[in-house]
Amino acid sequence: MTLSVKPDSLAVIPLGGVMEIGKNMTCYAYNDSMIIVDCGLKFPSEEMPGVDIVIPDIAFLEENKDKLLGVFLTHGHEDHIGALPYFLRKINVPVYGTRLTLGFVSNKLEEHRLLGNAALYEVAAGDVLEAGDFEIEYFQVAHSIPDTCGVVIRTPAGTVVQSADFKFDAHAVNGYNVDLTRLAEIGKENVAAFLCDTTNAEKPGHTGSEKEVGESLDKIIGEAGSRVILAAFASNIHRVQQVVDIAEKYGRRVAIVGRSMIENCRIAQILGYLAIPEGVQIDPADLDAIPPEKTVIITTGSQGEPLSALTQMAAEEHRYVDIIPGDTVIISATPIPGNEAAIINTINRLFALGADVIYPPIHTVHVSGHANREDIRMMLSLLKPRYLVPVHGEPRHFHHFRDLAEGMGWKEEEIFGLSAGDVLEINETGASVTGRVPSGSVLVDGLGVGDVEDVVLRDRFHLSTDGVIIAVLNVDIKNRRLTQPPEIFSRGVAGEDIAESLLEPLPEKIDERLQVVFTDNGSNPEAIKSAVKRVVSRHVYDKTHRHPLIIPIVTEF
Amino acid sequence: MTLSVKPDSLAVIPLGGVMEIGKNMTCYAYNDSMIIVDCGLKFPSEEMPGVDIVIPDIAFLEENKDKLLGVFLTHGHEDHIGALPYFLRKINVPVYGTRLTLGFVSNKLEEHRLLGNAALYEVAAGDVLEAGDFEIEYFQVAHSIPDTCGVVIRTPAGTVVQSADFKFDAHAVNGYNVDLTRLAEIGKENVAAFLCDTTNAEKPGHTGSEKEVGESLDKIIGEAGSRVILAAFASNIHRVQQVVDIAEKYGRRVAIVGRSMIENCRIAQILGYLAIPEGVQIDPADLDAIPPEKTVIITTGSQGEPLSALTQMAAEEHRYVDIIPGDTVIISATPIPGNEAAIINTINRLFALGADVIYPPIHTVHVSGHANREDIRMMLSLLKPRYLVPVHGEPRHFHHFRDLAEGMGWKEEEIFGLSAGDVLEINETGASVTGRVPSGSVLVDGLGVGDVEDVVLRDRFHLSTDGVIIAVLNVDIKNRRLTQPPEIFSRGVAGEDIAESLLEPLPEKIDERLQVVFTDNGSNPEAIKSAVKRVVSRHVYDKTHRHPLIIPIVTEF
Repeated sequence: MTLSVKPDSLAVIPLGGVMEIGKNMTCYAYNDSMIIVDCGLKFPSEEMPGVDIVIPDIAFLEENKDKLLGVFLTHGHEDHIGALPYFLRKINVPVYGTRLTLGFVSNKLEEHRLLGNAALYEVAAGDVLEAGDFEIEYFQVAHSIPDTCGVVIRTPAGTVVQSADFKFDAHAVNGYNVDLTRLAEIGKENVAAFLCDTTNAEKPGHTGSEKEVGESLDKIIGEAGSRVILAAFASNIHRVQQVVDIAEKYGRRVAIVGRSMIENCRIAQILGYLAIPEGVQIDPADLDAIPPEKTVIITTGSQGEPLSALTQMAAEEHRYVDIIPGDTVIISATPIPGNEAAIINTINRLFALGADVIYPPIHTVHVSGHANREDIRMMLSLLKPRYLVPVHGEPRHFHHFRDLAEGMGWKEEEIFGLSAGDVLEINETGASVTGRVPSGSVLVDGLGVGDVEDVVLRDRFHLSTDGVIIAVLNVDIKNRRLTQPPEIFSRGVAGEDIAESLLEPLPEKIDERLQVVFTDNGSNPEAIKSAVKRVVSRHVYDKTHRHPLIIPIVTEF
Repeated sequence: MTLSVKPDSLAVIPLGGVMEIGKNMTCYAYNDSMIIVDCGLKFPSEEMPGVDIVIPDIAFLEENKDKLLGVFLTHGHEDHIGALPYFLRKINVPVYGTRLTLGFVSNKLEEHRLLGNAALYEVAAGDVLEAGDFEIEYFQVAHSIPDTCGVVIRTPAGTVVQSADFKFDAHAVNGYNVDLTRLAEIGKENVAAFLCDTTNAEKPGHTGSEKEVGESLDKIIGEAGSRVILAAFASNIHRVQQVVDIAEKYGRRVAIVGRSMIENCRIAQILGYLAIPEGVQIDPADLDAIPPEKTVIITTGSQGEPLSALTQMAAEEHRYVDIIPGDTVIISATPIPGNEAAIINTINRLFALGADVIYPPIHTVHVSGHANREDIRMMLSLLKPRYLVPVHGEPRHFHHFRDLAEGMGWKEEEIFGLSAGDVLEINETGASVTGRVPSGSVLVDGLGVGDVEDVVLRDRFHLSTDGVIIAVLNVDIKNRRLTQPPEIFSRGVAGEDIAESLLEPLPEKIDERLQVVFTDNGSNPEAIKSAVKRVVSRHVYDKTHRHPLIIPIVTEF
């Protein structure tokens, strides 16, 4: 579909799934120019068994791809860059991002064998780019990955600022705070609309500084009597830097363990975002050669992810690291909603193996990368935008953001709670939602992009709760009879012996029922199938109160 | 197996699964007398698809059932009474509990058609019972369900106190605080061991009072401009009582919605634990007849349970209640770990429908029913037991309890971190773990108790992530050939069209491969099956990177 926006108006369109607005991808259109900011993925919910990742549906962008001038990335987190391989395969436009962001992007595109064809352009905080009718300025913000930038998007119809994921951190590692001076200047530009990260809009006060975590880790590692194992988000390079510095201070060697941690640290070291002094880093295979009280292991698994290093250690299945009494394990992260049970399971297993486990909120070993309410207030005070668009959140965050903004004087009609696909039209006279474009999510499972849909998920869910029963029938069509007794198989319904005795009466019951079907309906395969389904389902429910998926297979002779 | 405990020694044995010790069931044995305290269930984890509940394995008790004198219940929560129907079917001994506890038990046993045969004996706080060599005293504690009691278990070998789930609440609704006076007296008895609820051993300070919630709800409901919908745990009768009282104060009528809330309120009203003044309660079907600002709906779903009333309302699928803008929805509970994503989903949907949703920790609309660290300290100071046994918790709680107790002067060897099945032997000379009895969990799925085991769960999990492919082969054994081309079916692998084209080349590939098998191995069905599995699995993985469960079905002719 063509986007119908008034000439000389700026359209702002969040794209992707319904519940997380303006997180993974936002489209800006002005006359014949179009850009997108970020191109990220979501991780599947419990209702999507087997699904690897969820990416925005870009059908609308494909239909307008001749207008699309580029992808402007704010930072290197998966929810902002993870859909790029799928996007670039369909729409190969230039990609802009900071040095570290492009480092992560390059690595990802290489894995997908797309790096050779991609046009990647490095930008730095302070840079101002032009693309068609757009001017795009990058300004530095603090976040849980270095080199994060917000963007100012200037058009003749007005200026929009998108915060990116941000927090304020005057005590940030390596000076990565919000560029307050520049922000104050931007605030004088008569900003039309501000798309604000609302992740922490429920949380009171200010977000803590990364350095507070450093101080806390310094104490814990300094006092630890034996080995220290620290799990963090693999992209949290500043956290890793702090742990490396503390390890060096206490004469400990550092081993980096876990695929994504190794990869990210390698990239960050090459690009100059992580400095590990000569002689500090050791190979995980060499850990045994060093006294445990002289080592720190930095690793993945802070979310209890099934295949991650810390989860494997907790399950006594890791290649190099056996947890032993005396180990101090630090979970330097808070659970992303949905991961709580998994990380609690990891913590329990580690305690059961004799480790001392340190985790928030009991200890200050993590701070968020997102602005709490007071930080959001500070941002709004600096930018003084006319209209507000809460993004990077869910309805609950938008509600609390609205509350906050109304408390600061914005009027209800100046705050736009957009849905994905909504077209917010901005021009000199004002702003309003003037239409919708197709938007949604696409599920990726293995090599399949979009082939797993509701029916498939329903089947999988059904299979997972009650298993499957297969009834094989060889039907002699002409003579209206089975050529041999029905064969019944099950998987995931009950243990072998019990399943056997459960299924045992079925061939006879099916046979009986089919006598009637053959008489009434002849050898109609659909009638046979539905009769078999009914017989099996009834019998199994009576005996077990379970509802397995029943697949009758009729072979005709 | 027979329990081998020294004569005149008291054995304390937590039973059930590994990660939650002494929560659902604890066995006490002295010479030829044996009793159990509580008989509860666990809810299944994510790794148990399709499982309804998890109950303790009671094989050990069955083998000793001639010695077993009774079940002593501390309170009416599912994790303390939920396994009774399964237990009583196998071991029908007397059951003791307070009035409300037995009210909930009776209802449950009636559903299972077991009430007629059960011997239920009502006890009250202060009662002292005798059973064989045991004397059992019930003492009142505060908890999130009325009529909760801890137990003092006296034997010639020494006295053990089991806290039950408890908190202190000097401001409890209807005066249900811990009986401090009695507790102080018990503390003078030279208590040998104390089994302490450690649920909140990670949480600093004191647990808040139920009345604080009441004050907060009073303000919210008093200021609400329209309808109020409040979701709480269905057994939290004091919470319901407070809401009813507040509703009456503001001239609102109360409708109770949701099966378990209706059931529990009915029982609590009959037994005198819940008082709803004449004319306040209305039938949910009559809600439409009353102005919304004059109603409060009390309901289930505070954990985002899929079939609960609030979840249905959020999904716009509830029979009587459509959420409309202006509704105030109060989630008067915190998520049990593992339920976070579900409840957040409910909250988001409610906001999206225009409701104002009030939930902790932003608002004080819930307090825990368990003792925080300062409350645990107070309990230990009052009881002054020689030995400590952390129960009703996981390894992480036991670790923090141990820390706390060591800080108060208990020595490492005086604190017993038991595993389920461990036999803690207590006599006048001391206490030590002297053995183990069989213990574990049994999964209940529909009518099946224990027939769903690891293999079944693995199959279900496998089915849920990648679906199933069925290959049907009719083999002419004598002539070593297929009587017709293989038929291939799939469910849960990919959408219909894509699955069709995915499977399309398979019959030919299988045919080719089977030529070789027939030549090399004749018509050996196992060789045929394994060859087919390999061909299908390889093809599907190459094309999709998925690993469905592959079921080859060979019919011989």
